[in-house]
Amino acid sequence: MQLVVQKYGGSSVATLEKMNKVANAVIKRKKEGFNVVVVVSAMGKTTNNLIEMAKSISKEPCKRELDMLMATGEQVSSSLLSIIFQEKGYDSISLTGFQAGIKTEGVHTKNKISEIDTDKIKRYLEEDKIVVVAGFQGINTEGDITTLGRGGSDTTAVALAAKLKCECEIYTDVDGIYSVDPRLFSNAKRLDYISYEEMMEMSCLGAKVMEARSVELAYKYNVPIYVASSHQKGKGTYIKELDKEMEHKVITGLTVSDNVLMETINQVPYSSEYISDIFSRLAKEEVNIDMISQTSSGDGYVNISFTTSKEDEGTVDAVMKEYIKNTPGINVKKDTDITKISVVGMGMRNESGVASKIFKLFSDNSINFKQVTTSEISISYIINASDKEKAVNVLCEAFNL
Amino acid sequence: MQLVVQKYGGSSVATLEKMNKVANAVIKRKKEGFNVVVVVSAMGKTTNNLIEMAKSISKEPCKRELDMLMATGEQVSSSLLSIIFQEKGYDSISLTGFQAGIKTEGVHTKNKISEIDTDKIKRYLEEDKIVVVAGFQGINTEGDITTLGRGGSDTTAVALAAKLKCECEIYTDVDGIYSVDPRLFSNAKRLDYISYEEMMEMSCLGAKVMEARSVELAYKYNVPIYVASSHQKGKGTYIKELDKEMEHKVITGLTVSDNVLMETINQVPYSSEYISDIFSRLAKEEVNIDMISQTSSGDGYVNISFTTSKEDEGTVDAVMKEYIKNTPGINVKKDTDITKISVVGMGMRNESGVASKIFKLFSDNSINFKQVTTSEISISYIINASDKEKAVNVLCEAFNL
Repeated sequence: MQLVVQKYGGSSVATLEKMNKVANAVIKRKKEGFNVVVVVSAMGKTTNNLIEMAKSISKEPCKRELDMLMATGEQVSSSLLSIIFQEKGYDSISLTGFQAGIKTEGVHTKNKISEIDTDKIKRYLEEDKIVVVAGFQGINTEGDITTLGRGGSDTTAVALAAKLKCECEIYTDVDGIYSVDPRLFSNAKRLDYISYEEMMEMSCLGAKVMEARSVELAYKYNVPIYVASSHQKGKGTYIKELDKEMEHKVITGLTVSDNVLMETINQVPYSSEYISDIFSRLAKEEVNIDMISQTSSGDGYVNISFTTSKEDEGTVDAVMKEYIKNTPGINVKKDTDITKISVVGMGMRNESGVASKIFKLFSDNSINFKQVTTSEISISYIINASDKEKAVNVLCEAFNL
Repeated sequence: MQLVVQKYGGSSVATLEKMNKVANAVIKRKKEGFNVVVVVSAMGKTTNNLIEMAKSISKEPCKRELDMLMATGEQVSSSLLSIIFQEKGYDSISLTGFQAGIKTEGVHTKNKISEIDTDKIKRYLEEDKIVVVAGFQGINTEGDITTLGRGGSDTTAVALAAKLKCECEIYTDVDGIYSVDPRLFSNAKRLDYISYEEMMEMSCLGAKVMEARSVELAYKYNVPIYVASSHQKGKGTYIKELDKEMEHKVITGLTVSDNVLMETINQVPYSSEYISDIFSRLAKEEVNIDMISQTSSGDGYVNISFTTSKEDEGTVDAVMKEYIKNTPGINVKKDTDITKISVVGMGMRNESGVASKIFKLFSDNSINFKQVTTSEISISYIINASDKEKAVNVLCEAFNL
């Protein structure tokens, strides 16, 4: 018998009515001859409500206890969904993370799956049960209940599919992966396929449909992922190994992030000591640096720009203030009214000239960029926030996104 | 270091504010030099709300899934309470039933504790943590989450106290055990002490403060129980081994139940075959019989009365209808407008004449009784519901309750 892992997110199981629709979709698959493992998130805003309750007690509630608290959300939705299957005449059983054999390690609220013992799931599947697994959670070696952080239920689903050697279907509130967020470019195209690498790059650069870690896990174990809408029919997007069908596009997608802070430091004495000092101070405060560029001003000094996320603004301000004290004559400028636009595509690996094509496009349309970085399959530009819409339209049209 | 198990019921932890008060009470005990294991119920009406959700899906939701669903209630309250302790500067850890080593057996929603492995609790107590245990739940040999049925959190607390060899304190919304429900007799006295046997008898006869099974467990392992109010100061009631202090009263308490249905069958042929036929038919339908009395009408026929709970009325009606068909000439009468009044007291074991004293009291006050049964430490009367108030007052005054 064929097997599939399906994952339904919080908005797909927000009410009993919506769960009923989920159950019908699963049963349809069952009737097609599939054994189904269903991974569910907590109903609607449950997790946020639980966190709020804990935060009303303590600004920083103990993470071990937060995990204990949050894990109840998926336990509730999995048992209710299982009751719905039974009411519809299908044998079903719900399993918490630990019952499903999901062992984790790491820090609470951000655990990673270390091992899955699927014996129990396999036994229940052999008994022709629809197995409903509480997503987002597991158990560590201490026997504590753990959670997997953002996108944790996706990770549960992909990891189970990897272990059970089957396809993983992610049902969510969008109908697939788009070349660009349709809210930014109304003609955005839904992709039929995207490679693991492109999807990871897009996730890292700000696409919110899937977390990079779940895609990475799928890539590592070669698990095909199908992302589709839980409430509307029609095709979704396959995330899978690059094949010929997918190779004809140079640029697959475009991502945009407004959560960018850029610091520019002028007149830094050209000495690795001064430069490394900046970044070691930032690292000590756990500020994640995204882009870095350095140019020489030709007179024994260099200019340095780096970007980070706006959440770190306060910390960066404090670090830079200290740094200036120790390095007189230096000049620091902060930009927050900026946007990062990235284009992603496996085609870039083999095709040169993408960067220059974009430079030309920007120049023709009077878009100034403040910084640029390239990776093997992506190029990112920092532009003024006011140019965002224009830049998105220009790029989407030029690359047929 | 001394150790105590404290249990707080659903109404004591209904809101974060109330939990805060519970935390202060526990900390007070901690400061007195006690290690504390706290057993909590689910917040307020949580369990009922979860059951209602399941019942809105299915009239008879699978009990295994119901257990999975209900167990989340105590998991939430235990983790929140633990966060409150930490916020107040006290190290604490919450444990689900399975983490606390509570192993159970039996049918879902009505499991019994089979074994407790307290190693983990002991270790955390040695680390000076306040251990908060989710009441009402455990895990069976299959690895399924189970619940312990009515009064399950009390059972958890008593069983833990038995295993840890310490006293068990039950904090609830009443300030102890009363000789009679104060809503029925406003001068009712709170008892300082009551023996295990009397408490069990009173629980079986309808007193709602504690379930008989928890008291029975305490009796078996000789765990002293202290029942008191979680929201008001003042003394509560000890449930413990009978000692001299407690022996001077003949009648310790009085219980009243309106949930009684009485069937009277006249003209049953005097043959064990006919009589046993009635009760085997009822047993087959899982009707629990409470009182039975049989009298001879002197002409080869007998009259039989029995009582059961009103919930079984439909089943009893159907069974009696069938029985009449097979036993022509028989005459069946049903009474539902009746009340059962029971007096309980260890003193009855050594003192005769209690029944006759009550017969006299009833006769003097024109109270007719329809049925009477006696056990070693209790006597129960079925009277007309309209005589309830009068009977309660007469008995309470006569026996100084």
